[in-house]
Formats: sequence, structure tokens, C-alpha cells
Amino acid sequence: MEQRLSLITLGVTDMPRARSFYEAMGWRGQETEETVFFQAGGAVLVLWGREKLAADSGVVDAGPPAFGGIVLAHNVRSEEEVRQVVLAAEGAGATVTRPPGETFYGGYAACFADPDGHLWEVAYNPGFTLDEDGSIILPDF
Amino acid sequence: MEQRLSLITLGVTDMPRARSFYEAMGWRGQETEETVFFQAGGAVLVLWGREKLAADSGVVDAGPPAFGGIVLAHNVRSEEEVRQVVLAAEGAGATVTRPPGETFYGGYAACFADPDGHLWEVAYNPGFTLDEDGSIILPDF
Repeated sequence: MEQRLSLITLGVTDMPRARSFYEAMGWRGQETEETVFFQAGGAVLVLWGREKLAADSGVVDAGPPAFGGIVLAHNVRSEEEVRQVVLAAEGAGATVTRPPGETFYGGYAACFADPDGHLWEVAYNPGFTLDEDGSIILPDF
Repeated sequence: MEQRLSLITLGVTDMPRARSFYEAMGWRGQETEETVFFQAGGAVLVLWGREKLAADSGVVDAGPPAFGGIVLAHNVRSEEEVRQVVLAAEGAGATVTRPPGETFYGGYAACFADPDGHLWEVAYNPGFTLDEDGSIILPDF
């Protein structure tokens, strides 16, 4: 298995609401067959019906959990940018689960849940440099 | 918010088991402060304690759900490669939740759960081309 991932699919219960949220954040997606695809660097973020996603994956959906065990992160280049993205997310309908503040690793971050409860961390981590195109390249620890 | 994501963090309950699983799949990570980082294209897959991840995100963890609402996908270049990756995953301790087979969109795919229940789809999708480096670039629909 090559060391990469291709798609991150978020199960959603109300597609217009979910798509509107990401578009209010400035993202632009393409829809086909009740599925919305957002190019995200060399990977793709996908919105698809939660029931279909569970069935397609061969598992039972017991309903939205408080915590699904996965957090996506969007790293930015300054503390100010963290605050701006969180304000934009709140304006778009997100719930802020952790207000912006300093982190244990010497950075600055906040967390929000999208309308389906999927968690995003918005982080400024001075130890993780972003390329011009936003790619994150791990330093050697 | 720029249209990209930086990190995908999987909450795990047994770090050595989780790290061994991904290393048995051929991935190589770096560990620091009980956190394992795998470079994955222009993004990074991270393993971190599930309790810490929930607390850090400002949410309550009610325990591993049957379905967390997110599926990661690893796209490959042939049906044969789908079968090979699924065999490797089974050998590394994954649970196959959907055996390899044709998909509704004209491709070929399978799903497995990693030792913490995080779902991966392994897919050959003739409509989604992979670059040489494995990046997936959406076609215009």
C-alpha cells in the first residue's frame, strides 16, 4: 500500500446544508449523483449521504456519535488566520468546540464541528511549514 | 479558508498496535510525544490517543462507535492492486467489511477497518486518474 490517501468522505444527513457550509467557507465543489467532490491538494474531500456511506462500507450506522474518532486539520500561516477561519466557520454555521488559544506544542489553534458534527482543527504550528500551495511537509523530528 | 486539508488524525486506543498496523502495510512514520506522523502526499496522517484527541478537540468521547461517519480511501491503478492491498491489510490485522467487487460507479473496490475501527476503501476507479506520485486530480464532471 503506497503511503498516501486519495479521498476523505464525510457522511452527511442534509446535503444542501453540508454543501452550503463548505461553499460559505470559500470552497468550490462539483456535484454528481448526489455526491459533492472538492479538490483538496492532491486528495479530494467528498460529501455523501451518511446512510449510503455506511452501507457502501459494509458497516452498521448507529447514528451520529458525539465523537467519531477522526479530526481533520486545516493548517494556516498565522494566529490571525486561525481567528479569521474560525469566525468564517461560525458565520457559515459551525459550532466552535474549542475557542482559539495557545496549544501545548507551542502553536495556536481552535476546533469547530461542521453541521454534521465532523471536527476540524484550524492550527498555526510554527514547527510545520506550509509550501506555497499549502502542502504540509513533515520536518525530521 | 483555502481549499485543502493538512492533517487527518485517527484516534487510537493502543498506539503500538495502531503503528504496527500501518507499518505492516508498508508505511513509515516518525514518532514524537506519543504521536505518530506519516507523510501522505501533501497531507499528513497522524495517530494519536483517542482520549487526548477528543479532549483536545473540545468534545466528549462516548466510546468507539460502529460508524464514525468518515471513510478514508486509497485509490489504486488496477483491480489486482485492490485485491493485493486488501490481502496485505488482512495480514496486518484489518477486518474486511466489504470484500473486493465491482462498484455501482463502474469501478472495483473493497473496504476494511483498521484495528481501531477506522474505515478505508481501497478502490480502482477508471474515472479518476492518479498522477505518477499518486495524487488524485478530479476530472470535470
